[in-house]
Amino acid sequence: MTPYSPPLRDITFVLRELAGLDEIAGLPGFEDATSDVVQSVLDEAGRIASQVLAPLNQTGDQQGIRRENGTVKTPDGWRQAYRTLTEGNWIGLSCPQEFGGMGLPGVVDAAVSEMWQAANMAFSLCPMLTQGAINAIRTCGDEALQAKYLPRLVSGEWAGTMNLSEAAAGSDLGAIRTKAVRKDGHYLVSGQKIFITYGDHDLTENIIHLVLARTPDAPVGVKGISLFAVPKMLIGDDGKTIRRNDVQCLSLEHKLGIHASPTAVLSFGEKEGAIGFLIGDENRGLEYMFVMMNHARLNVGLQGLAIAERAYQQARAYAQERIQGRPIGCSAPSAIVDHPDVRRMLMGMKAEIEAMRALAYLAAAALDRAQAHPLPAERDAAKRYAELLNPIVKGWCTERGFEIASTGVQIHGGTGYIESTGAAQHLRDARITTIYEGTTGIQANDLINRKILKDGGLTLDRSLDDAGKTARELAQHDDPILQDIGNALNRAVGDAHRASRWLQDVAAEDPRQAAAAGVPLLLLLGTVLGGHEMARAARLAVIRAAETDTDQGFYRTKLKTAWHYAEAILPRSSGLLGTIIRGSRTVMVLDREEL
Amino acid sequence: MTPYSPPLRDITFVLRELAGLDEIAGLPGFEDATSDVVQSVLDEAGRIASQVLAPLNQTGDQQGIRRENGTVKTPDGWRQAYRTLTEGNWIGLSCPQEFGGMGLPGVVDAAVSEMWQAANMAFSLCPMLTQGAINAIRTCGDEALQAKYLPRLVSGEWAGTMNLSEAAAGSDLGAIRTKAVRKDGHYLVSGQKIFITYGDHDLTENIIHLVLARTPDAPVGVKGISLFAVPKMLIGDDGKTIRRNDVQCLSLEHKLGIHASPTAVLSFGEKEGAIGFLIGDENRGLEYMFVMMNHARLNVGLQGLAIAERAYQQARAYAQERIQGRPIGCSAPSAIVDHPDVRRMLMGMKAEIEAMRALAYLAAAALDRAQAHPLPAERDAAKRYAELLNPIVKGWCTERGFEIASTGVQIHGGTGYIESTGAAQHLRDARITTIYEGTTGIQANDLINRKILKDGGLTLDRSLDDAGKTARELAQHDDPILQDIGNALNRAVGDAHRASRWLQDVAAEDPRQAAAAGVPLLLLLGTVLGGHEMARAARLAVIRAAETDTDQGFYRTKLKTAWHYAEAILPRSSGLLGTIIRGSRTVMVLDREEL
Repeated sequence: MTPYSPPLRDITFVLRELAGLDEIAGLPGFEDATSDVVQSVLDEAGRIASQVLAPLNQTGDQQGIRRENGTVKTPDGWRQAYRTLTEGNWIGLSCPQEFGGMGLPGVVDAAVSEMWQAANMAFSLCPMLTQGAINAIRTCGDEALQAKYLPRLVSGEWAGTMNLSEAAAGSDLGAIRTKAVRKDGHYLVSGQKIFITYGDHDLTENIIHLVLARTPDAPVGVKGISLFAVPKMLIGDDGKTIRRNDVQCLSLEHKLGIHASPTAVLSFGEKEGAIGFLIGDENRGLEYMFVMMNHARLNVGLQGLAIAERAYQQARAYAQERIQGRPIGCSAPSAIVDHPDVRRMLMGMKAEIEAMRALAYLAAAALDRAQAHPLPAERDAAKRYAELLNPIVKGWCTERGFEIASTGVQIHGGTGYIESTGAAQHLRDARITTIYEGTTGIQANDLINRKILKDGGLTLDRSLDDAGKTARELAQHDDPILQDIGNALNRAVGDAHRASRWLQDVAAEDPRQAAAAGVPLLLLLGTVLGGHEMARAARLAVIRAAETDTDQGFYRTKLKTAWHYAEAILPRSSGLLGTIIRGSRTVMVLDREEL
Repeated sequence: MTPYSPPLRDITFVLRELAGLDEIAGLPGFEDATSDVVQSVLDEAGRIASQVLAPLNQTGDQQGIRRENGTVKTPDGWRQAYRTLTEGNWIGLSCPQEFGGMGLPGVVDAAVSEMWQAANMAFSLCPMLTQGAINAIRTCGDEALQAKYLPRLVSGEWAGTMNLSEAAAGSDLGAIRTKAVRKDGHYLVSGQKIFITYGDHDLTENIIHLVLARTPDAPVGVKGISLFAVPKMLIGDDGKTIRRNDVQCLSLEHKLGIHASPTAVLSFGEKEGAIGFLIGDENRGLEYMFVMMNHARLNVGLQGLAIAERAYQQARAYAQERIQGRPIGCSAPSAIVDHPDVRRMLMGMKAEIEAMRALAYLAAAALDRAQAHPLPAERDAAKRYAELLNPIVKGWCTERGFEIASTGVQIHGGTGYIESTGAAQHLRDARITTIYEGTTGIQANDLINRKILKDGGLTLDRSLDDAGKTARELAQHDDPILQDIGNALNRAVGDAHRASRWLQDVAAEDPRQAAAAGVPLLLLLGTVLGGHEMARAARLAVIRAAETDTDQGFYRTKLKTAWHYAEAILPRSSGLLGTIIRGSRTVMVLDREEL
């Protein structure tokens, strides 16, 4: 078992100084998010993460999930840990109070989610999916449906799932074949769904499956998909469960990682038909599912950040303990943390993690503003910004998160390759994050088509202009480190602007070339926008350090970490730019048979 | 089970056109390496790889290794597969005929090794380590020792191992504590060794452990280490095994990957002392071990290449089969290989694999020249070049190999995360290659200190000058693709030259900064020198295509693949250069407690 120490100081800094928590707390609906409340929520969430969830992470991985007598058993201790969440009303943290939630901003939920995913990702997928189901029903379901399902989902008595994939319909949801036929005020759903996370388990008495399916006369493709709530246990008018619905868990997957998270093949309607309830209108299922997916995508981005933080903490502890060799400039054998190459790895991990945290929380804060700001223009701007950041946070934080988890193994040397060390589990767990809820390629498609090209690059340019402004201001600052950061950011923003212009030039005449550039462009933008947040953090650190006597250590560390990000991480932008503008045109030069 | 198809066409191209096999076959000692012999060796090795070893790869992973009644059992079918190797005299492929080998050049062995590691890395570690032991005994042992051990190691009747690591001595071999006390013409060895690959198994009747240990009066540190041959079974004067030596396998590690390769904790001399025989002179053990390690490092580099090729083949097959979505420009749903982002991944894998193959074989060819060239100056130049390439091939091919194996998972989407698919095994297996036989950080230290700084950058500059010359020639060529390649290579070589000069400037005044730049510099040099080989390949492809009517498809594909390497992969050099010259100075800015 490796400990997890919630990085509360940096979390609080990012929430308050970068993501604008105080301003968000002033928006209508978030009145309860006082400074005291937020701090005690974070403290308690951190305590649960480190004391309840983290100790179950490795044992969960080792035990995995078992099927016994038709039920799916979670590992030892998981039911009790789940009760801790429900007793504290944690699942409803950001749900309105009318449904039993705590009504806190989503950005606070993001911070809590980071800690829980870091502590135990396989476990925390369960509440994460329930929150997604809550969002979808809240946003798209009618009042009756909301009254029926929301209170028990919010309380955590019931769990929720997302049922999208079928054997022949993964990234392409237009190919979905699951059927839903109207009958007696509900629908009979039949078909098979795969890769259903927490598709069956013993943590709750009921599971509400949100299922994409087609009605008989639906248009072909994505325009003919509807969304249904299909409970595992049917519910009577009194709200009590009556009997099993016709939903079977056929099998569980044996996966590379997240061994304790049940990934199920679910069969709907093998016998009499699974009873389901339409959410919203027919044929708008994909639109509704996106509500859930966008939440899930932000949260998967947070998983990338979270596992990176966990892997970093473990590697740091090992590097500070493990005596090996005589580092340059040391007169005696010393801990490997003093070897420049080990330090390079740790420093890079730390810098990227802090940038990822800043960008992910910013995306969550933008969603809060988009939802709650009183001014329509502000809501609209926040919505566009949140939509731009969504695929970047999902794609960039997970790609980097996996790489950082792998670096964590590397720092351990041969010990990292031994499973009992625990470092390899982070790598295995992290590997799914670039795949589920839309692969990085799917995120990149979303980014270039719906988030950049659709508005002529306006939202992106605005973000990059902001970054460029920060860069120029810092380059003029008295502090030489801030100058360095400003100059480095300026170069990187220039690269990002060039890539954006190239994309817009090339997209019309050669859309395949534009598509081929999607992933490197996503990574470039993550690197640069994350770098902007680190630059802002550095400037604030200088300001705060001058204002106060406390926390000098934190601010000095933040400044230097941002410096390293600027000098060691931001230069990647030039390599990515080259790959984008030169390398995209040679992606399709071979016939597929020549590969 | 996923098939493996030996890439014989590219292997032959690289051997003949880039690595200079014909010239090597003309060197003294390699007279038997006629064109026909080499081709039939490669064909037969490819057949064994695809038909004998590849089918056991996934079952081996699933069964793993078992301890039963004090013996270590390999998975089903392994003993039979091993017999195929010994019956064909494959282990002695590049050993002199006087010891029963085939006397072929090492570069041919490298090609064979690539295929076997690709087919089944966990299995092929066994002959690889035996070959390393053969090299060490051949190079450093006296005649009696050679006569005693070499014939049966070469025949494969016995296997060999490397015993370096101890609990407190991993990367730092100076910390080794295993003792060896002289007695009656041999030594009694006692101590515990960890991470011993194939430390115990049932494939051979005996195992010759090469063990680093200290004699009682040895100097401290690496200068007091001696090398011993410690057989598992003691051998009588008639060459027959008599009884167990005092060597115990205490346990086997449960690892992330290479499940079927036994990684043992070995205890020497728990009872009466393990009888060992000094190899060469006392206190020269580290020097001798490097003979073995350099062989092993080249071979681990080949493993990186090999797993990348295997992962590529599997991902390509999946991408050509799996129908999903409607790619841009396609009127109907199509295989995912036609999606630009999937093509980007496959194209990048293919281009890097071919560059890795070229550089790895070049390193093997340089070793052949260093050993067999009649002119001392040529031998010396080849030796320096081989020594420069050794850490680059080990570090770069394994880092890229892991990344490519991970990309193979990504192309499979959710299916790749399911263990039965087999893509995840490649990722798990590949993960050890950047760690064992010296981590990438250790390779980078070797590269900058012993291979670059020690000779004032002379050997490196010569290699880069060669690359620059090729670049300028291609930039002047009539063929527009060769021009592109030449221009791209020229930029990248410029980056490498700048990095090399920076290293030499900074090393004297700030060695920690130089050390911090080691890994990115290693990756930069791998990228650029690999790019040089791809540029040479492209030029040769144009020449050969003009000369002949056959193989036009291969040459056209090679040219375009090299083009993609130049345009999409080489631009990484600018990002790496920035990280090196700007980022290295901020690596150590935090105190270790501030991390």
